[in-house]
Amino acid sequence: MEYFALPLQNLIEEFEKLPGIGSKTAQRLAFFILNQPKEKAKKFADAIISAKEKLCYCSVCQNISDKEVCSICDNPTRDHSIICVVESPRDVLQIERTNEFKGVYHVLHGAISPMDNVGPDDIKIKELIARIGSGDVKEVIMATNPNLEGETTAMYISKLIKPFGVSVTRIAHGVPVGGELEFADEVTLSKALKWRVEL
Amino acid sequence: MEYFALPLQNLIEEFEKLPGIGSKTAQRLAFFILNQPKEKAKKFADAIISAKEKLCYCSVCQNISDKEVCSICDNPTRDHSIICVVESPRDVLQIERTNEFKGVYHVLHGAISPMDNVGPDDIKIKELIARIGSGDVKEVIMATNPNLEGETTAMYISKLIKPFGVSVTRIAHGVPVGGELEFADEVTLSKALKWRVEL
Repeated sequence: MEYFALPLQNLIEEFEKLPGIGSKTAQRLAFFILNQPKEKAKKFADAIISAKEKLCYCSVCQNISDKEVCSICDNPTRDHSIICVVESPRDVLQIERTNEFKGVYHVLHGAISPMDNVGPDDIKIKELIARIGSGDVKEVIMATNPNLEGETTAMYISKLIKPFGVSVTRIAHGVPVGGELEFADEVTLSKALKWRVEL
Repeated sequence: MEYFALPLQNLIEEFEKLPGIGSKTAQRLAFFILNQPKEKAKKFADAIISAKEKLCYCSVCQNISDKEVCSICDNPTRDHSIICVVESPRDVLQIERTNEFKGVYHVLHGAISPMDNVGPDDIKIKELIARIGSGDVKEVIMATNPNLEGETTAMYISKLIKPFGVSVTRIAHGVPVGGELEFADEVTLSKALKWRVEL
């Protein structure tokens, strides 16, 4: 039985396809769009189309960009001899927010995960090796996620890079700042003890 | 500082405008769209535009419709002498799901709420009175929400309708089916006791 008019039903179904959006939320969002002025709804639709049309991967670091070379790779004030390797564009954002890193990035768009059928050729490892092969790189910081897939990927890439004579580092594991020891898991705590630093 | 390419940033901001969508979720949804094939993203954008362009209010019951008269009002097998008054199109859906009601609806698109500056003229009460004035209506069921605004609206409308000699009823209050008495609030429980029925 059909309860909503077809264009409304269609919109609800489109929202339901988004990750983490259930049928109730999809309804709420669709009604919100209906109650918006026409130009605001159009702006939303245009943003979807234009994001798909105008965005590409930066030819250097593979981050999402609206130019052939992204603004970070194109920035001469950044240190192009240090490459920070991350799994996703969101990780670039997280690291940029720290305001601590002045090097450049390489986005893998995933991590090696045999369980999900993702092998080394399915992520942007070739492109990273090509960058390192072209010289001028002194250090590669592996900032993949601290989980099984991320660690595997970091290990795999570091083995590939070492022959180039480039230093390969891994971001530190330890207890999160502002957290409480009580809530730290054993693995994190044991790493935090192992890699303790002198004060 | 800008971390994402502009079209991506725009899309994230559009998602953030939706109710209940925070910045992290907006990012996740925007990246989901980016990873979709172009035609799927276009289908989503089209659904937004077409929902805004093709939908209107049914000229009889004010429910959202893609025709001048909606499929329920246009259905000759429904009982047009019983009107169920609800606050929103979603309430129509909820009642239709029970498969118990064979009458027609009237959607107010809100409830009287002085706190939110919504008066009787801001919701579709005039249209309801016009329907009743045109005759043939035997009963009006007030199915507005069981909260302060809904009760106020039900009382207000019932006073307006009574002079027409039409029966006005209110949906029953009581304990929800499948619930436990332990979790019922006092007001609900006292109503459930007051309106007890003989077995």
